[in-house]
Amino acid sequence: MNNKFYGIGVGVGDPEQLTVKAINILKKLDVVIVPEAKKDEGSTAYNISKQYLKDDVEVIFMEFAMLKDPLDRVAGRQANTRVVERLLDEGKNVGFLTIGDSMTYSTYVYILENIKDEYKKSIETVPGISSFADMSSRFNFPLVMGDESLKIVSINDNTDIEKELCDTDNIVFMKVSRNFDKLKKALEKTGNMDNIIMVSNSGKDTEKVFYDISNLTKQDIPYFTTMIFKKGGFNEWKKFSL
Amino acid sequence: MNNKFYGIGVGVGDPEQLTVKAINILKKLDVVIVPEAKKDEGSTAYNISKQYLKDDVEVIFMEFAMLKDPLDRVAGRQANTRVVERLLDEGKNVGFLTIGDSMTYSTYVYILENIKDEYKKSIETVPGISSFADMSSRFNFPLVMGDESLKIVSINDNTDIEKELCDTDNIVFMKVSRNFDKLKKALEKTGNMDNIIMVSNSGKDTEKVFYDISNLTKQDIPYFTTMIFKKGGFNEWKKFSL
Repeated sequence: MNNKFYGIGVGVGDPEQLTVKAINILKKLDVVIVPEAKKDEGSTAYNISKQYLKDDVEVIFMEFAMLKDPLDRVAGRQANTRVVERLLDEGKNVGFLTIGDSMTYSTYVYILENIKDEYKKSIETVPGISSFADMSSRFNFPLVMGDESLKIVSINDNTDIEKELCDTDNIVFMKVSRNFDKLKKALEKTGNMDNIIMVSNSGKDTEKVFYDISNLTKQDIPYFTTMIFKKGGFNEWKKFSL
Repeated sequence: MNNKFYGIGVGVGDPEQLTVKAINILKKLDVVIVPEAKKDEGSTAYNISKQYLKDDVEVIFMEFAMLKDPLDRVAGRQANTRVVERLLDEGKNVGFLTIGDSMTYSTYVYILENIKDEYKKSIETVPGISSFADMSSRFNFPLVMGDESLKIVSINDNTDIEKELCDTDNIVFMKVSRNFDKLKKALEKTGNMDNIIMVSNSGKDTEKVFYDISNLTKQDIPYFTTMIFKKGGFNEWKKFSL
C-alpha cells in the first residue's frame, strides 16, 4: 500500500499557522475527513485547509457523537474507523484534520485506537500549533521557562484544582466553561485570582481576553474558553498586550 | 516604530515544520539572532531558516552563557537585550530564532523579561512545533486525550519524580541526561519501566529510540534526550512504529 492515512494538525484558526508539511500533504489528499465533535471545530479546520485541497477532493464530515453510554461511543468510533480502512483499501490518500495539534486532545486518536494492525504502517501524523502555544505567543507570555513545570489539565469531576494550583508553576485549564464556578472558587481560596489569563473564542472575531474574572459567572463563559495560570502572575507580561 | 522584534519558533529540525507565518517573517528580517545556549541548537535553528532569509541579512550568534552566579547570568541577558533595543532603534526588523516553540523553555523569553517598556508594543511572537508534539506525531502516540492530563517537567534537584508519576497521566521529562539515574530508579520503584518512550537526538541522523531502558546508565544518554511517560503504557502505540 503506497497510499496513507494522515492526521494533520492545522493550528488554531489562522491559515498562516499551517506548517509546510501540512500544506504539502493537504495538496495530495484524495479524501479529507473533517471531524464534527466540538461546536464549529470541523468548519474551522476545513476553512483553514481548503485553499490547498485538490478541486475534486472528497470531503467527509465525520461525526463523533458524545453519547452517554461509553459502549455507544466506542461503537461510533469503530464504525468511523471502518470508513477510513475502506478508503485506504481503495488506494486513496486520506487526511484527517484536527484543530490545534493532532496528538493533543484530538478525535484523530480515536481512529488510531481502533484501526486494524495491517494499516498501522500506513499512518503518518503531522503536528500542529496547539491552542496554548498560540495563546502564549499572541499575548507574549512564556508558557514555561527554566526549571518550571507546565501542566495541561482537562477539568473533570475528580479534578482537585486547589492541589493542582499548589503543585505546578504553570497550568493550562481546558474545559473551563463547564467548570468555571469550581475553578474560580479554587483561585479565590488559594489567593490566585491575579495569576491568570482567560481567553474566549481565541483568534476569532468574538475573542475576549480577561485578566480579571471576579465579576464573571458560569453563564458568561463561552464554550471555547481556555485559562492559563502562572504562579508568578501576569503583571509584567500584560504590558506586552494591554 | 514600524519595525518589530520577532520571536520565531522554527520547530525541531525538519524545515517542513516551519509555519507559513514563520516563513513570511523570516523573509523580511534585516537581522536574525541565533541564540547559542544549548549545544548545536543555534546552528540547527539557523539551518532550518536560512533558505528564507534575505541575502544581505545580518546574522548575530548571541551567547546566553549558563554562568554559575545568577547575577552574572542576568547581566548577560541584559547586555543581550540592549543589543536588540539598539537594532530596533536603528529601524531594523529583528528576528530571534528558537528551536521548538518560542514560549516553551526558550532563551527568547530572557529578552522579553529585560526589554524596556517602550519596546513592548513592537514585539510579535510566532509559535512553533514543540519537541514533545514532534515526538508524539513521529511515533504515533497521543500526548493526551479525553479527561487525561499532561505535565511537562524539567527535572531538577527538587523534583519528586515518584510523586509526579503518581499524580499525572502523561509526563514529558526534560533534562533527562543530567538526571537519568534518578529517573530510572523512580520508574523501577513505581513499576513504570514499561510505560515510557525515550528518544535521543530526535529527528537527527544519530536518533535513537528506546522503549526499554533497563540496560542503560547515565553515561549512555546524549544531551538531547526526552522521555515521555504514559500511565497506560506504549504497548498498543508501539505497533505504529516498530
